[in-house]
Amino acid sequence: MRRTSFADMNCSVARTLEVVGEWWTMLVMREAFSGVRRFDEFQGRLGIARNVLAARLQRLVDFGILERRLYQERPERYEYRLTEKGFDLYPVLLSLMRWGDRWTAGPEGPPVRLVHQNCGHEATSVLSCSECGEELKPREVRALMSGTGRPLLDREA
Amino acid sequence: MRRTSFADMNCSVARTLEVVGEWWTMLVMREAFSGVRRFDEFQGRLGIARNVLAARLQRLVDFGILERRLYQERPERYEYRLTEKGFDLYPVLLSLMRWGDRWTAGPEGPPVRLVHQNCGHEATSVLSCSECGEELKPREVRALMSGTGRPLLDREA
Repeated sequence: MRRTSFADMNCSVARTLEVVGEWWTMLVMREAFSGVRRFDEFQGRLGIARNVLAARLQRLVDFGILERRLYQERPERYEYRLTEKGFDLYPVLLSLMRWGDRWTAGPEGPPVRLVHQNCGHEATSVLSCSECGEELKPREVRALMSGTGRPLLDREA
Repeated sequence: MRRTSFADMNCSVARTLEVVGEWWTMLVMREAFSGVRRFDEFQGRLGIARNVLAARLQRLVDFGILERRLYQERPERYEYRLTEKGFDLYPVLLSLMRWGDRWTAGPEGPPVRLVHQNCGHEATSVLSCSECGEELKPREVRALMSGTGRPLLDREA
């Protein structure tokens, strides 16, 4: 039941999905961002089969998103730490959460709230422009092919 | 080969993955954000089997992310338009793209670049705080359970 590989598509979205598109991967990452490091703790919190979890963790290690580190010698025990590449998935995680908060939360509201410690406020995440700081809205952004500078969908072509 | 349903988990990330976690879904959305509306155009651009595409589109319609609209009467033809709920997935898409640009692009660099029309600059996306506008970094954000106000991972519990 393996699907087409996305890795060969020349698209950053497809290539990212090739890495994080497995069902459980982003939930493993959610736990890692919460501070979970040890196999048994991932397992207990996710309620996931051990063999599935082991495969997901190994895949994340192979991709350089988590790093496996020895924390005890007898018996040997390892923990899983986010790498820089892993930390860099934070915007993906928060964007998934933000959408779910808006569109899937029950009457009791979102289950988790975020406090931005730098400003001290309860906050939500906003996707903004690296240059002017304004929110990036789909109708105000043009996507251009890097090579040709043409629009991604060239209606005149 | 169906996995556990994420919809029952009280977590906005899990619930979002329940909706957009299918392999092809975010690529269908990528095309929709590029302006693709018609079945044959989705099909041609994605190189995806027609039955798989039809199932994905139907699922997105069922979830209220795309809307199916009649655009021609004889023969009847429909197009698929993003709803507000669909447009709201833009931060997820751009965050996936941003990570892929950083970590998966080949030596030729990212395949697509974004121009923010409001400021006129080539831009990347930054996840920022709704309150102070600064970038949200994982070590500077605390996630708290809405009910209890306790940290998501309570080391003192």
